[in-house]
Amino acid sequence: MIGLFDSGLGGLTVVKEVWQQLPGYPVIYLGDTARLPYGTKPAELIRSWSRLNVDWLFNQGAEIVIIACHTASAWAFDLINQNSRRPVFGVITPGVRQALATTQNGRIGVIGTPGTIRSGIYQKKIKELDQSVQPYFQSCPLFVPIIEENWMERPGVREIAEEYLKPLVNQGIDTLILGCTHYPLMRGTIEQIVGQEVTIVDPAQAVVQEVKNFLIKNQELAQKIKRSREHRFCFSSQPYQAETISRLCLGQTIKTEVINDN
Amino acid sequence: MIGLFDSGLGGLTVVKEVWQQLPGYPVIYLGDTARLPYGTKPAELIRSWSRLNVDWLFNQGAEIVIIACHTASAWAFDLINQNSRRPVFGVITPGVRQALATTQNGRIGVIGTPGTIRSGIYQKKIKELDQSVQPYFQSCPLFVPIIEENWMERPGVREIAEEYLKPLVNQGIDTLILGCTHYPLMRGTIEQIVGQEVTIVDPAQAVVQEVKNFLIKNQELAQKIKRSREHRFCFSSQPYQAETISRLCLGQTIKTEVINDN
Repeated sequence: MIGLFDSGLGGLTVVKEVWQQLPGYPVIYLGDTARLPYGTKPAELIRSWSRLNVDWLFNQGAEIVIIACHTASAWAFDLINQNSRRPVFGVITPGVRQALATTQNGRIGVIGTPGTIRSGIYQKKIKELDQSVQPYFQSCPLFVPIIEENWMERPGVREIAEEYLKPLVNQGIDTLILGCTHYPLMRGTIEQIVGQEVTIVDPAQAVVQEVKNFLIKNQELAQKIKRSREHRFCFSSQPYQAETISRLCLGQTIKTEVINDN
Repeated sequence: MIGLFDSGLGGLTVVKEVWQQLPGYPVIYLGDTARLPYGTKPAELIRSWSRLNVDWLFNQGAEIVIIACHTASAWAFDLINQNSRRPVFGVITPGVRQALATTQNGRIGVIGTPGTIRSGIYQKKIKELDQSVQPYFQSCPLFVPIIEENWMERPGVREIAEEYLKPLVNQGIDTLILGCTHYPLMRGTIEQIVGQEVTIVDPAQAVVQEVKNFLIKNQELAQKIKRSREHRFCFSSQPYQAETISRLCLGQTIKTEVINDN
């Protein structure tokens, strides 16, 4: 199984990419709904919870794990990756690579939760890979609750999104990284505001592309992953709005399992 | 000390009432910031966390405890109160009593988190005390994130608040209970939308009034509470936006303590 871990339901946007790019590969999904949101909580808690969640997925039989949550990838990916014998993927670096391949003018915008933006991880990864690029950041703390309420097309939301995004547009960005698993669900509104001159980068697509490349090179592991039959969707507590969000992400409802042992 | 427990920082609106109505009484505040929000999480978790938090406050020397969080009061107050040897106050019943004393036309609106509204507690308490009253309910899940971002005066918020509140106004309510500790911080916007014909009931004022009456009748306990000197503000993890919210609620910043033992 391909393990995916997210703080809640937003990571289903990454499951959608797995289903599109890697059909036939079963997933085991863990949403840490009892502890969400991660985006406004301290780094040390995110690190500790993320380790527990990744370990749980491996213990349940996942052969590789994607940390779908940007805040968890920001604070915990390096630590977990260094200490893991099995393959772990985060969403930050794949998104950055794709943004660097996309930008023409070297001005990249990044939107995310307060935790992801405050972590400085995007700044660090972008500068590591290309010193010449100028990144601009904006935390958009109201986007996740708006998306979880399926409130994207309701009055007031466009004004809020403009408040967040206009400063980035005014900086002349030509590329925008959606630095939170929920944000692809608001892509329509975001695209309308930033305009056609700005290319949107969805790290969910980018990380699953990297996983796909990895599996092409590791056929034995790929075959092992495929041996499982069913998808599993596990949560640390009964998720709020599971039906709404799973329909938005996957076009179908999911059968949820509540686990109590992580 | 007077103990106050809330899922996060919103309960500081109740501390403000204690400071106004009961000056000279020190408080110990516990915000369960590691686990917030309570409003979208399952009842059984809220019950278990609420018990831990109330026990912690008593163990730290609180002589009485106010459950300031409406979601916790909704799911856990009866259970905790039945099993406690020491006085525990919730915010639901005091707010309902004040609303019943206020309404002229018997149409009362209640706004709260999804958890509080889904619990049916306001329906039950209102009907217990007055069968003839007709309550109307609206969960307003975006209000807490908007308030925590101090986004109340920003574009888009008035439109969101109108979407939530207009259906209640259209039902002809003359009284509106603010069924979440955060909502007093949005009182200005709410008042503008519901108009002068609707009287706003803030359960924070009502519960502290009940505590005050209780202490007048229990002078020995009142004197014991007063013996402590300092206010304490404790959190299960470093709170997000502590400075902003404490300034909004109390007009000053608070010294926060992070505790790890509940």
